[in-house]
Amino acid sequence: MKKGKSTKVRINEKFKLIEGGICAPKMFLSAGTACGIKKSNKKDIALIYTPHIASAAAVFTTNKVKAAPILVSQKNIKGGKAHAVIVNSGNANACTGRQGMKDAWEMINQTAAAMKILPSHVLVASTGIIGVPLPTKNISSGIWTVSRMIKRHDPGDAAEAIMTTDTRKKSVAVELVFGKNRRVRIGGIAKGSGMICPDMATMIAVLTTDALIGPKPLQKALKEAVSDSFNMLTVDNDMSTNDCVFILANGQSEKVTTGKKFEQFVSALKYVCCCLAKEIARDGEGATKLITINVTGARSKEDARKTAKSIAGSSLFKCAVFGTDPNFGRILAAAGYSGAGIDPDRIEVDIEGVKLVKNGVPLRFDAQKAVGCLKKDKVIINVDLNQGKYSATAWGCDMTEGYIKINAHYHT
Amino acid sequence: MKKGKSTKVRINEKFKLIEGGICAPKMFLSAGTACGIKKSNKKDIALIYTPHIASAAAVFTTNKVKAAPILVSQKNIKGGKAHAVIVNSGNANACTGRQGMKDAWEMINQTAAAMKILPSHVLVASTGIIGVPLPTKNISSGIWTVSRMIKRHDPGDAAEAIMTTDTRKKSVAVELVFGKNRRVRIGGIAKGSGMICPDMATMIAVLTTDALIGPKPLQKALKEAVSDSFNMLTVDNDMSTNDCVFILANGQSEKVTTGKKFEQFVSALKYVCCCLAKEIARDGEGATKLITINVTGARSKEDARKTAKSIAGSSLFKCAVFGTDPNFGRILAAAGYSGAGIDPDRIEVDIEGVKLVKNGVPLRFDAQKAVGCLKKDKVIINVDLNQGKYSATAWGCDMTEGYIKINAHYHT
Repeated sequence: MKKGKSTKVRINEKFKLIEGGICAPKMFLSAGTACGIKKSNKKDIALIYTPHIASAAAVFTTNKVKAAPILVSQKNIKGGKAHAVIVNSGNANACTGRQGMKDAWEMINQTAAAMKILPSHVLVASTGIIGVPLPTKNISSGIWTVSRMIKRHDPGDAAEAIMTTDTRKKSVAVELVFGKNRRVRIGGIAKGSGMICPDMATMIAVLTTDALIGPKPLQKALKEAVSDSFNMLTVDNDMSTNDCVFILANGQSEKVTTGKKFEQFVSALKYVCCCLAKEIARDGEGATKLITINVTGARSKEDARKTAKSIAGSSLFKCAVFGTDPNFGRILAAAGYSGAGIDPDRIEVDIEGVKLVKNGVPLRFDAQKAVGCLKKDKVIINVDLNQGKYSATAWGCDMTEGYIKINAHYHT
Repeated sequence: MKKGKSTKVRINEKFKLIEGGICAPKMFLSAGTACGIKKSNKKDIALIYTPHIASAAAVFTTNKVKAAPILVSQKNIKGGKAHAVIVNSGNANACTGRQGMKDAWEMINQTAAAMKILPSHVLVASTGIIGVPLPTKNISSGIWTVSRMIKRHDPGDAAEAIMTTDTRKKSVAVELVFGKNRRVRIGGIAKGSGMICPDMATMIAVLTTDALIGPKPLQKALKEAVSDSFNMLTVDNDMSTNDCVFILANGQSEKVTTGKKFEQFVSALKYVCCCLAKEIARDGEGATKLITINVTGARSKEDARKTAKSIAGSSLFKCAVFGTDPNFGRILAAAGYSGAGIDPDRIEVDIEGVKLVKNGVPLRFDAQKAVGCLKKDKVIINVDLNQGKYSATAWGCDMTEGYIKINAHYHT
């Protein structure tokens, strides 16, 4: 990545946004309904399915405390093949011991039975309250219902059914054009870090594609896309027990296993993941603004990532953005403790072109203009380390009284 | 450290709390006054001095963005000797470039001239607004004034003069008894993480002792004490550009260089540092509660520390404590992402004896009793990893709307 060039993937002539979310790729079906896990009677169970056996890949939370569905899906993903992903919200099935493991396997088995597929071809994810056993009766009837409802259109139901305190559905799809009638589609849904106390922040995404690609290159593509998208996302630095991203590739269109096609596929996948990551940041608990941190001039990709994430994750900086305070000091301090190899005397900082800092020293800047940039609901901070050619982008949100209210006051 | 035994140092027959703060050790003098750096006209400059050349040791922020006074003191501490520490509040002299370095050296030179000592025997620290040049005229007159005011009693003035948004002075002293008329005293003052936007959170402590000990063992003792006290403290996970802890030992009492006396000295020093660290946590921005996290049963000291700090620093957990929500899930999750080698299935958690979790699974607990414990202004959480014999304690505070208010709304 050349200096000055952001890692952010832009829509280009190679791919375009399309309608249809996870059902945009050929032969993917989905459904979402309410089965009574949530007391609010909102949708709480989703099924994503393809009748063609798909290559499957996934990334999971690195938290040592892992929810039962994570442990179960980690086993099933080893085969590299899947037909379906079953997701419930309203209960995370985390910290639930042996019963939790039994219940997660039961979700797999029931989905397999309802869809007439092998249990080893089902993946499972859960999000919601932790330490409480799954309401198995509701789940069973929910699985039965969604397996009957499954259809091509209206993927919004599944996007809605995986939400917890998210305030809006997160869904996107793109189409890659390799030539006349040679198109590959990628779709995705996600839920962000929301919680109804004492629930936990969790991030779940399900991606679908009709590309023809084996599990190994698919895993490689997913890992690369996730490292520049979901892994560059921070709402409160708290890592969940339930985070996971799944991708199913059912091979109904072009082969993208190697070479330039693989690169284009990764680009498009990264774009889809970045869209969903930004949606999650924007919808962070109590957030009023999406913050984008572009770091350039780093000595290594890792240094660029560390610096961008450290700034996006700083509580002090997040409060300053909420208060529309162009507080370059908190930006410099967060860069300084990021663990990245930086030279404090070479840092430059600007907010959408308003230069705040040069050579590590504050400039006289137009405060009114800087405050104006911070008042927008999308805030972009550019940090040039002036030390190398690597860059990275991280996304976060401001920190507000709303965050405290959600996480302190609305508990059971 | 045996399993079940906390690292917390308790007052025992070997040492006792005494009055006098940093002036409790023999031949230490101090002063604090207002020289107009703070617009509020509150005290903003402090001098701590001993006429006997003292062994000196220090620990500094590991932030790569370091304030000028940190860089200057890092040079002077190399000699291992000091007579005086000059500290100003109201201006951090951070991100101030060459002018900042010049101004920090000027503080050293003026203090040396006023006290008729060598510049290499002066240490300097600053805290307050960043990116703004020091008001050198005020500083000069302030140094002159405190050098004339310096006296044995009323060390409270110095403790007050280093405050920023701290709501109370932090001062403590202990006396070690080695035998009849063989006593060693240790005193300390500190300021916590407070800021007046766009200032930065900073932590500064100055420790004094009349023990006879060379710079090298003194540095060793300080490092050990700090690692179990100030380094186990978290208010918002934001590391400052100005953090530093100084200790001066003027050799006016017992020799404590080696053996059992050294151990006892370290114990007492650790106690002093822990007292100040707890005061800083309790006085964290917007905080209403002091939170103590005791971790036992870790496989290594490092694992115990990581786990305790990770829990104490979790925004979600801190919000839960504010909301008096016995949210064991957030405790388990923070332990899980701490980076420590833990076995999720062996963790036990209790709040002052109310067991919440055993073998990683929640128990039926008396919610009313647990909420009662969380309503106190001192909250104690015990986490047993059941994997080894190491333990550690970390301190933090709850996260409240007050934190957001201070850091978002009260900016200039």
